[in-house]
Amino acid sequence: MIRYKAIISYDGTLFAGFQRQPSMRSVQGELEKTLQRLNSGEQVQVHGAGRTDSGVHAYGQVIHFDLPQDRDLEKLRFAFDTQTPDDIDVVSVEKVSSDFHARYNKHLKTYEFLVDNGRPKNPMMRHYATPFPYELDIEKMAEAIKDLVGEHDFTGFTASGTSVVNKVRTITRAEVSYDEKSHLITFTFTGTGFLYKQVRNMVGTLLKIGNNRMPVSQIKTVLETKDRQLAGPTASGQGLYLREISYHDEMTKGD
Amino acid sequence: MIRYKAIISYDGTLFAGFQRQPSMRSVQGELEKTLQRLNSGEQVQVHGAGRTDSGVHAYGQVIHFDLPQDRDLEKLRFAFDTQTPDDIDVVSVEKVSSDFHARYNKHLKTYEFLVDNGRPKNPMMRHYATPFPYELDIEKMAEAIKDLVGEHDFTGFTASGTSVVNKVRTITRAEVSYDEKSHLITFTFTGTGFLYKQVRNMVGTLLKIGNNRMPVSQIKTVLETKDRQLAGPTASGQGLYLREISYHDEMTKGD
Repeated sequence: MIRYKAIISYDGTLFAGFQRQPSMRSVQGELEKTLQRLNSGEQVQVHGAGRTDSGVHAYGQVIHFDLPQDRDLEKLRFAFDTQTPDDIDVVSVEKVSSDFHARYNKHLKTYEFLVDNGRPKNPMMRHYATPFPYELDIEKMAEAIKDLVGEHDFTGFTASGTSVVNKVRTITRAEVSYDEKSHLITFTFTGTGFLYKQVRNMVGTLLKIGNNRMPVSQIKTVLETKDRQLAGPTASGQGLYLREISYHDEMTKGD
Repeated sequence: MIRYKAIISYDGTLFAGFQRQPSMRSVQGELEKTLQRLNSGEQVQVHGAGRTDSGVHAYGQVIHFDLPQDRDLEKLRFAFDTQTPDDIDVVSVEKVSSDFHARYNKHLKTYEFLVDNGRPKNPMMRHYATPFPYELDIEKMAEAIKDLVGEHDFTGFTASGTSVVNKVRTITRAEVSYDEKSHLITFTFTGTGFLYKQVRNMVGTLLKIGNNRMPVSQIKTVLETKDRQLAGPTASGQGLYLREISYHDEMTKGD
């Protein structure tokens, strides 16, 4: 068997999420259906690096899968890309060693969250950004977001009732930018891993801060108290993008 | 009766076009339904500046309509905006003199056409740009597009069988730009008016030139010969945007 790694982009609007679910349309399900066709009808299991929720988009989801033959990579990418539905694209395919695992190999993930601050909202962006047609102080959010960088226990920013025990994660980069022309605000987070709904809860809190309904110090307060009640509401999934995943071995390659 | 002018934006994906049509979902039909509700159930006729086709988007469509009362403009805009479906937005509403007509008052229209030159295409842009995953020489297109500027008979760039007799129009601005990050190519055309499918046929020809399958001089040839057979294919509607309309009286106001 030969192991392949692929970078996948998809529009999450019409999927119940990445993960395969009975009688629901999922990204994993569509990818596996396509690979089975490309593999003479034999089942192929797809492993994804991150399980994105319903409505969440990806530019750089990473998957791996095994095929019995050594394939021409561009031909495989092209067939895989053109045979998946219109809302999934296969950006690249490469061969990797048989111990590579998209989820378990050390990596950094980058998520982006888009907010449409226009009034009215841009109708073309209604599935691709969360509308927030209220006042937002970008400076305040830029100040507050810095408090997320570093190693922290993110209990206060995750959904209650998650089964994950260790809630300590490291964020290496957290930024907010504003594009005047499109009225789009982009939050960018890079880290070793993110808890369930963590990005959406961090964004919900930052929006409350930007709208002057929480103090700039609120991020620190939530990290210290680990109290979900003190964080802002969960921002909706449609603004969230899995932007990029870089694996540890790739990161050191360039050094 | 008081006449109102409004700027409307919409995502054309799920509309059969701007113009009202029996048993089809149209922008005009949705706007008239909403205004009727805001007008105590009395019918209101909407006049649009341009009849965009199915799948064509708008950021700056202009409409006018009459209402019996003098309304608070922001309240009217807000009610109109929130009561239209999610894929239509009301950007602004103002009062105008009773002889203003969105279509017949002199104006300049700006259309944009987006091409996704990425390979693979961006799945998030599949309804918002026409995919063209082949080589494109931007320099050649930038040279050829200049030949469209000025007063010309655009017979060679319109659909055959149109009932319009005078096919002379003036283009005041024609430009192409490329954004490296998104792989998006934007064609921008401003003019006194455009014939049916003119923008899409001009873009189809420019793409053939950029792909080295027609000479840079082809635009000139089509204008001179007025031969539709010599132009490129009609580009699909999903990349086309009615960007802006500026009326003659507004244009001179700033002088």
